[in-house]
Amino acid sequence: MPPSPNGATLAELAGLIGARLVGDGGRAVRGVGPIGDAGPDQITFLANPRYRPALGACKAAAVIIAEEVAGLPMAQLVMGDPYYGYARVLQHLYRAPRRAAGISTDARVAGTVGEDPDIGPFATVGAGSSLGDRVTLHAGVRVGNHCAIGDDVVLHPNVVVYDGCVIGNRVIVHAGTVIGSDGFGFATHGGVHHKIPHVGRVVIGDDVELGAGVTVDRGALGDTVIGPGTKVDNLVQIAHNVRLGKGCLLVGQSGVSGSSELGDYVVLGGKAGVAGHLAVGDQAMIGGMAGVTKNLEGGQMYSGFPARPHREFMKAQAATLRVPELRERVRRLEDRLGDGKE
Amino acid sequence: MPPSPNGATLAELAGLIGARLVGDGGRAVRGVGPIGDAGPDQITFLANPRYRPALGACKAAAVIIAEEVAGLPMAQLVMGDPYYGYARVLQHLYRAPRRAAGISTDARVAGTVGEDPDIGPFATVGAGSSLGDRVTLHAGVRVGNHCAIGDDVVLHPNVVVYDGCVIGNRVIVHAGTVIGSDGFGFATHGGVHHKIPHVGRVVIGDDVELGAGVTVDRGALGDTVIGPGTKVDNLVQIAHNVRLGKGCLLVGQSGVSGSSELGDYVVLGGKAGVAGHLAVGDQAMIGGMAGVTKNLEGGQMYSGFPARPHREFMKAQAATLRVPELRERVRRLEDRLGDGKE
Amino acid sequence: MPPSPNGATLAELAGLIGARLVGDGGRAVRGVGPIGDAGPDQITFLANPRYRPALGACKAAAVIIAEEVAGLPMAQLVMGDPYYGYARVLQHLYRAPRRAAGISTDARVAGTVGEDPDIGPFATVGAGSSLGDRVTLHAGVRVGNHCAIGDDVVLHPNVVVYDGCVIGNRVIVHAGTVIGSDGFGFATHGGVHHKIPHVGRVVIGDDVELGAGVTVDRGALGDTVIGPGTKVDNLVQIAHNVRLGKGCLLVGQSGVSGSSELGDYVVLGGKAGVAGHLAVGDQAMIGGMAGVTKNLEGGQMYSGFPARPHREFMKAQAATLRVPELRERVRRLEDRLGDGKE
Repeated sequence: MPPSPNGATLAELAGLIGARLVGDGGRAVRGVGPIGDAGPDQITFLANPRYRPALGACKAAAVIIAEEVAGLPMAQLVMGDPYYGYARVLQHLYRAPRRAAGISTDARVAGTVGEDPDIGPFATVGAGSSLGDRVTLHAGVRVGNHCAIGDDVVLHPNVVVYDGCVIGNRVIVHAGTVIGSDGFGFATHGGVHHKIPHVGRVVIGDDVELGAGVTVDRGALGDTVIGPGTKVDNLVQIAHNVRLGKGCLLVGQSGVSGSSELGDYVVLGGKAGVAGHLAVGDQAMIGGMAGVTKNLEGGQMYSGFPARPHREFMKAQAATLRVPELRERVRRLEDRLGDGKE
Repeated sequence: MPPSPNGATLAELAGLIGARLVGDGGRAVRGVGPIGDAGPDQITFLANPRYRPALGACKAAAVIIAEEVAGLPMAQLVMGDPYYGYARVLQHLYRAPRRAAGISTDARVAGTVGEDPDIGPFATVGAGSSLGDRVTLHAGVRVGNHCAIGDDVVLHPNVVVYDGCVIGNRVIVHAGTVIGSDGFGFATHGGVHHKIPHVGRVVIGDDVELGAGVTVDRGALGDTVIGPGTKVDNLVQIAHNVRLGKGCLLVGQSGVSGSSELGDYVVLGGKAGVAGHLAVGDQAMIGGMAGVTKNLEGGQMYSGFPARPHREFMKAQAATLRVPELRERVRRLEDRLGDGKE
Repeated sequence: MPPSPNGATLAELAGLIGARLVGDGGRAVRGVGPIGDAGPDQITFLANPRYRPALGACKAAAVIIAEEVAGLPMAQLVMGDPYYGYARVLQHLYRAPRRAAGISTDARVAGTVGEDPDIGPFATVGAGSSLGDRVTLHAGVRVGNHCAIGDDVVLHPNVVVYDGCVIGNRVIVHAGTVIGSDGFGFATHGGVHHKIPHVGRVVIGDDVELGAGVTVDRGALGDTVIGPGTKVDNLVQIAHNVRLGKGCLLVGQSGVSGSSELGDYVVLGGKAGVAGHLAVGDQAMIGGMAGVTKNLEGGQMYSGFPARPHREFMKAQAATLRVPELRERVRRLEDRLGDGKE
């Protein structure tokens, strides 16, 4: 792990995250490390009580921790949610002043650009598009015509945004992701799959982050919508006219089929899938590799294919393993009754 | 949904799709909308009889419908396949005159180019390649050496076509898709995976559409072939030496392993997979998330892992749920016979 | 299949692969073909004894074969591992002299470049990066700042490497692949998913090959590591802080979640997944579509979801199919005992 660009005293960091400081506030740190590796100029954190014993041999200058522990060899920053404290401290130590490099002479930008852009070589922006302030387009980004992109947006290299799409403020999109491709819709007639023109848009809310290699199709009629604060991992497929609520988490290689709607704070596990035209309620958690084939209520966890409540899934799994034993017991009963046969 | 670029009278549209018009043929519409949202300058369609009651309150100027209904508040375009009519009407209203912008001075094109090209900035075409007439290469497209690309092809931004691949007429490829990468083939010898050179091609038939983020590997010896009229959704993997028939539909995140052959009009559901060196018959339908592990006959539906006829899959699913009840019944039998034990 | 750029005599090829030659060593071949298609100027191979009968009608000039067979119509190159011989012969016949085209005037390269580069148009390399000797960057490749790239590396078109990543010697990366994107890590606090800055790197060993559309996230703290000689197929997701050993094979659309470690020579089948924070032992083979949910010992094969030893999986599958029969037998027992009820 590289040294952080910024140092800070423990007192500064405690103030930043609202922690109570136990120890020398004047001591400076220059980085963050895991409990086992952190050096004397680093700060660490304890989110899982299981690792508390490891603190005894830890060399870090300080630990962010939920409750004060007597006799630790380092300073303590005590706060209710140490993992959140860790995130904030990392953000602080590794913040870098934003480059406002302007527009590369090798970029081709039509439309309007806000203040302090950073647009890399070979990026292209089509006619009628507007970029907000402090937008970063890395090399090779493609923004089509008539797109609207908010403030403080970062599009990593080779991201593609098709015509007419809308991206909110503070959105981050990782490399190679495609926004606004045509949905998979055809009217099959006489053995020919006739293309359904897709004239809707993709509308992405504020504070969304999309991973690398994600695909988001535009709506057929109407829009595909990603709610504010939703985070999407790599290689996820979001089909036409899908609506994701706010604060959802879609883990790598998951997918949502056409016109399905996820409520707020829904979690889709890795490689999970949702079939088309379904509704999944707020705060539902869909396990990894699960396949949703009907509407699901919010607030609980689901697993398997077809996806069912997690407890049912576990019971069915266990039951399957017991069938051989059950067959043996039935055979014994049949023997006792004198007509055992198999 | 944006206004369409073209208006049309109901009489024109009825003529276009071969429908019988019930109502005022002179009335003009400027767009298409779903039953619940369509406004008085729009046309809607009824493909699913379930939604017929909603027509009573619908504000659309007209509905495309399979059979005339008495007393509707709008004109009717009556035809056997309203969803097809809807596709054709959308295509008509949203058609845009093709830009023939020529070849951007920022593109680098070797080889030969047909009439009326539209080649965007930073696109590259290698030596010995030929492009047909009216080909659109969006910004950042890469076409290698010695490729042959037909007429009326559209490659969206950042599509990559490796050397020596062949693409038919009217093919559409969405952004970020890769055609012709080396297949995954190695000869493992002495603990080293020795690369198998891939000297075959990818050959794509007429009227194929590939979604965004698709990967199609070239053949090792011989070609990887995608039959005419086949449509492939986003993030689908098509391995080396696969052969897809005509009119297949491969839904998002599905995949076909090396050397497998799909017949004509095969449907692969979302996230479904086909193992290597298999044959799947014409018009087989593989359900979402199913995993094909042996040859399958055409003309029926398959589900689950390993994929089996859908009815069998459903029966096995139901059986699993009954195991706990069955255990209870066996326990009671054992009790009655006096040797209940578990 | 195209003619190979190089011809060779059978004696030359036998020497190259260490085979014993049976037949006319002076005969020349210009290509490789499968048993059924190979012509008289081609060489073929027999890796699977099942296909031996086909050799009788084969027109090839020679066959690479494990044991000499009497009476074959062609010359024989006899060696223990014919598939490896085939790979070596293909490599020899299809080798092409490397272009050392230099750096395109349309590329934008900062940092240092070794000998004989081939850097295509619209490629970009950031400040502080170093490229080894004989590096090929195809059109549209993006290498960030402070990357270190070894000798004889090939990055196909539109590959993206984020800042600070390290790539070994002789690494091949196919088109559209993304290396070094931020991992999917958030600290959720007060309904907001706060981004965990990712300050680790991706470190890729020598002789690795990554397919098209692959995503490899950088580490949060510490690195994501791909061991030497590991091969990764298309559309695979490798999450933050994953560690892959040497010689692993990850088949298309598989994925490894955050912080999991795979030993050496682990095989992940197509669409298989490994959940986070797990360890998989050396030479474990995870079947296609299997989902690993706990630590697995090496040296054996696993299948299903959740993944279990392959034999157990097969037994559980079989058991499920027998439940209906078992229910019928229980019903008969109940009838005999006079309280049959259902």
